Amino acid sequence: MMDHLIEKTISKDIIFEGRVIDLHVEEVELPNGKKSTRELVKHPGAVAILALTNENKILMVSQYRKALNRVIVEIPAGKMEKGEEPEVTAKRELDEETGFTCQSLKHLISFYTSPGFADEIVHLYVAKQLTKQTSPAELDEDEFVDVIELTLEQAIQYVKEQKIYDAKTAYAIQYLQLQQALGEKNE
Amino acid sequence: MMDHLIEKTISKDIIFEGRVIDLHVEEVELPNGKKSTRELVKHPGAVAILALTNENKILMVSQYRKALNRVIVEIPAGKMEKGEEPEVTAKRELDEETGFTCQSLKHLISFYTSPGFADEIVHLYVAKQLTKQTSPAELDEDEFVDVIELTLEQAIQYVKEQKIYDAKTAYAIQYLQLQQALGEKNE
Repeated sequence: MMDHLIEKTISKDIIFEGRVIDLHVEEVELPNGKKSTRELVKHPGAVAILALTNENKILMVSQYRKALNRVIVEIPAGKMEKGEEPEVTAKRELDEETGFTCQSLKHLISFYTSPGFADEIVHLYVAKQLTKQTSPAELDEDEFVDVIELTLEQAIQYVKEQKIYDAKTAYAIQYLQLQQALGEKNE
Repeated sequence: MMDHLIEKTISKDIIFEGRVIDLHVEEVELPNGKKSTRELVKHPGAVAILALTNENKILMVSQYRKALNRVIVEIPAGKMEKGEEPEVTAKRELDEETGFTCQSLKHLISFYTSPGFADEIVHLYVAKQLTKQTSPAELDEDEFVDVIELTLEQAIQYVKEQKIYDAKTAYAIQYLQLQQALGEKNE
């Protein structure tokens, strides 16, 4: 089954082991017997949360992203701790980043973000029945975010203006557009 | 504007410069004056093509992804060459990976795939009015793919079965679901 596509690892070189990612370079044997190298980023995986307030607004965070050297607006998200179930990460990150807890949390989809070079997976959840905490959990000490609430129409405008500019958030907004087009109400 | 979120670079360490990606580690000053490090993957950017045949099927490629150690099914995609316009990359990759050229190519959306650690951007296009080439362009020498054609219903099933498992392809399929729900016909 698809064996004719598979690349066998000949050797592996661990270039870097960091706080968030590791970098491996593998020498591989290609399906035609020739050799090549693959540069592979190892990532612990992440969750993202499409959180809808009782007024049907979308909770978003403005965050500076050093990789992009700019602030973008994203749905709340965060890395999974070692051994942590994604549902637990989702509730923790929602609380830490926005100060809200949720009564309802449903898995929407999981996807790899950059299969060409990284194993990062994002587990996307829809959170509803939110409650604002009086004493929210604290952010990681190197995290700084502004929380904003957007209507779907505002979020679509943010996509056009490239204030929203990442795959998971674009997917989440398109999901809401689809639900709206299908005529489904958010319970 | 949003200056209270910005991280200033204090120093930069180039860990790795590869064929596809580079890895930098930057020491940064956080908004509160404390220091931290950021592990940053530099990527040349990529395009992806949602290509619809005249029978309204979606062109897909099965491809082994070493980062995931498995075969997944994706819309055609590829890295931009240095100085290459994304439209040019899109036409080239569609030809190389599927053997089809297109008369119609429209930009749908661009998004960063992993803003937490990478600057990879994907420019997503919709290609229509396809023509099968008699002598298609050649794949890169380390690329091996099977071309398949899926209906939207099959693609949705592939998502459920996690044969389709990446962000750009999930976004593209949801886009078609949205167009269908909106009652728009593919011209």
